[in-house]
Amino acid sequence: MSAIENRLADLGITLPEPPRPVASYVPAVQSDRLLIVSGQIPFQDGVLMANGAVPSAASIDLATAAARCCAINGLAVAKAALGGDLGRIRRVLRLGVFVQCDPGFDAQPSVANGASDFMVEVFGDAGRHARAAVGVNALPLDATVEVEFTFEVE
Amino acid sequence: MSAIENRLADLGITLPEPPRPVASYVPAVQSDRLLIVSGQIPFQDGVLMANGAVPSAASIDLATAAARCCAINGLAVAKAALGGDLGRIRRVLRLGVFVQCDPGFDAQPSVANGASDFMVEVFGDAGRHARAAVGVNALPLDATVEVEFTFEVE
Amino acid sequence: MSAIENRLADLGITLPEPPRPVASYVPAVQSDRLLIVSGQIPFQDGVLMANGAVPSAASIDLATAAARCCAINGLAVAKAALGGDLGRIRRVLRLGVFVQCDPGFDAQPSVANGASDFMVEVFGDAGRHARAAVGVNALPLDATVEVEFTFEVE
Repeated sequence: MSAIENRLADLGITLPEPPRPVASYVPAVQSDRLLIVSGQIPFQDGVLMANGAVPSAASIDLATAAARCCAINGLAVAKAALGGDLGRIRRVLRLGVFVQCDPGFDAQPSVANGASDFMVEVFGDAGRHARAAVGVNALPLDATVEVEFTFEVE
Repeated sequence: MSAIENRLADLGITLPEPPRPVASYVPAVQSDRLLIVSGQIPFQDGVLMANGAVPSAASIDLATAAARCCAINGLAVAKAALGGDLGRIRRVLRLGVFVQCDPGFDAQPSVANGASDFMVEVFGDAGRHARAAVGVNALPLDATVEVEFTFEVE
Repeated sequence: MSAIENRLADLGITLPEPPRPVASYVPAVQSDRLLIVSGQIPFQDGVLMANGAVPSAASIDLATAAARCCAINGLAVAKAALGGDLGRIRRVLRLGVFVQCDPGFDAQPSVANGASDFMVEVFGDAGRHARAAVGVNALPLDATVEVEFTFEVE
């Protein structure tokens, strides 16, 4: 069991079956040392844990938890793409975070921290990443958050 | 003529003159084995084939066709960037799909499939890619869809 | 002093202290020859120079100036990440530009040119880049524009 698996166990996190994409693409693609993971929405036990816009339909706290859920799902996808070996991840490079929100909502960084903090919890300094976080007026399946990932792998 | 050109001919698709960017940037940039193609909007014979938001101004079917059109334009740009040789594309890595839509619209994956399915039609397994598809409230020139592309090339 | 520093001096531009991220991520990450810079918002002397949506709350001209400001900030981040040596930038690869706007606004390319033109002013042909520019209904801290960057470095 890799150090990362141990860390996940310490955090009490069991990676889910990687969510299947809801459309005709694949969950992850590797090119040289880049692993690109498709946009993840907050499926938990097969249902979306957060729907609608922040803050009118989903609170900041719920959205932040949803961003963390997206990150857990993204890590599950990465693990599957790497043949089950999370130890092959050298670092997290970039997160793209899309928050479904009402016009004028301006706390996307707080919401996105749900995903960003998770990466640092799991990978330590190697989890620190570049990020773009923006608001949008709609997301697939009315999810509150979508997060995409780029990892450097070996 | 490369296998990919043959495939396009089989599909009855003639790649257009690569659309010129509507601003001060370039259609595509290569770095090592990555070819990054700028966001494409659904120009067809010089006019946008779909304007406005889904579903109030553009149907899902029209938007899906527009996404396919964006993909055709993206492939035309890639061809020009590769000196005319589509055989240099090793695989499609990532599509970023932005769908102009009304708040609450949640079928971005269906729309984005217009672009994703095209890549698989043309490249087969090498056309399978990672993807982020989101909704937005506005796009350049009021286009209904914008798609950006990353290819792995040789 | 590198040629790029000279060029900035010719343009009368002093790079600011790199803006600190407003959340738990890092300003830039390098992987092989890619330098990925986090989404920048238009902080100038510690305050946002443009807030709200285009055109109802911010004019196109202001938003364009804000996009340029984001680009200056992105370059400041890149410089810090490269140990102060902008000469290590081989070219600008991609800009992702998010414009906070009202529904139906369609001049994102004009706004984004504020960032794109700056890169060409500074780097010449090496500043020409691929780009995706879209509208969104909300951005962090109510900023009018957010721009993220990918550079090729040595």
